Amino acid sequence: MVRAIRLLTTVFISVILCHSAMAHSVTKEQMHDDGIVRLSKIEVYPQYRDEYIELAKEVGEISLLSEAGVLAMYAMAETDNLCLITILEIYSSQAAYSRHIESGHFKKYKRETLHMVKSLELCDQTPLNPRSEIANVINAD
Amino acid sequence: MVRAIRLLTTVFISVILCHSAMAHSVTKEQMHDDGIVRLSKIEVYPQYRDEYIELAKEVGEISLLSEAGVLAMYAMAETDNLCLITILEIYSSQAAYSRHIESGHFKKYKRETLHMVKSLELCDQTPLNPRSEIANVINAD
Repeated sequence: MVRAIRLLTTVFISVILCHSAMAHSVTKEQMHDDGIVRLSKIEVYPQYRDEYIELAKEVGEISLLSEAGVLAMYAMAETDNLCLITILEIYSSQAAYSRHIESGHFKKYKRETLHMVKSLELCDQTPLNPRSEIANVINAD
Repeated sequence: MVRAIRLLTTVFISVILCHSAMAHSVTKEQMHDDGIVRLSKIEVYPQYRDEYIELAKEVGEISLLSEAGVLAMYAMAETDNLCLITILEIYSSQAAYSRHIESGHFKKYKRETLHMVKSLELCDQTPLNPRSEIANVINAD
């Protein structure tokens, strides 16, 4: 019995430690049949690059932490040309996507980056393997 | 005390249930400073599309399940043209990448898909937000 309690305590502490390494986030929804997997391809004007990156980081963090239906918002720039940005976006459903684009943080991002964006292409994707799942978390500093 | 044991038991069962939903995988390495985030962009000839997709699924599953340094291998096809495939690949280090391309399953994939691939572009990426982390798991059926 004492060993069982010790084991359970170890598991409990591990879970707490694991949880504390992540910034506080809402519980995520499961992917629905009408979920969206998208690669958003954005080219920004060089003079706005750093400013754009800060705004993209901000909207990604707020969306991941506060929206149950935003399963991924992972932004990358081509190492050889940081003006070419790709964001892997995963929404649990069409409704989750609608809620996202109606959110204050998305509208702020859209409004403040509009003049920075040279081109934007939304490329909807079909995942090849239904068993393969992505989780995107924001770690605490 | 009884309540504490109940709580710990609940946590323990949750961890077990959570674990059993995933196929058995090696423990993953942490991302190193020389880790790689890459978008591999592949166009396949239409007549080989389905066959290619099966081989890409296979190498992705084996790599994720068996290689500690393969943190993501998430393959998607453009919904409007399934011949245009993008794979988000994340390796924990240059050494992990070297081990991957030396593996039997990668060599098999490369050998068996070579004639199916019309073009291949390896686009190394710089993640915009160091706090944003991706985990890619294979769920059990």
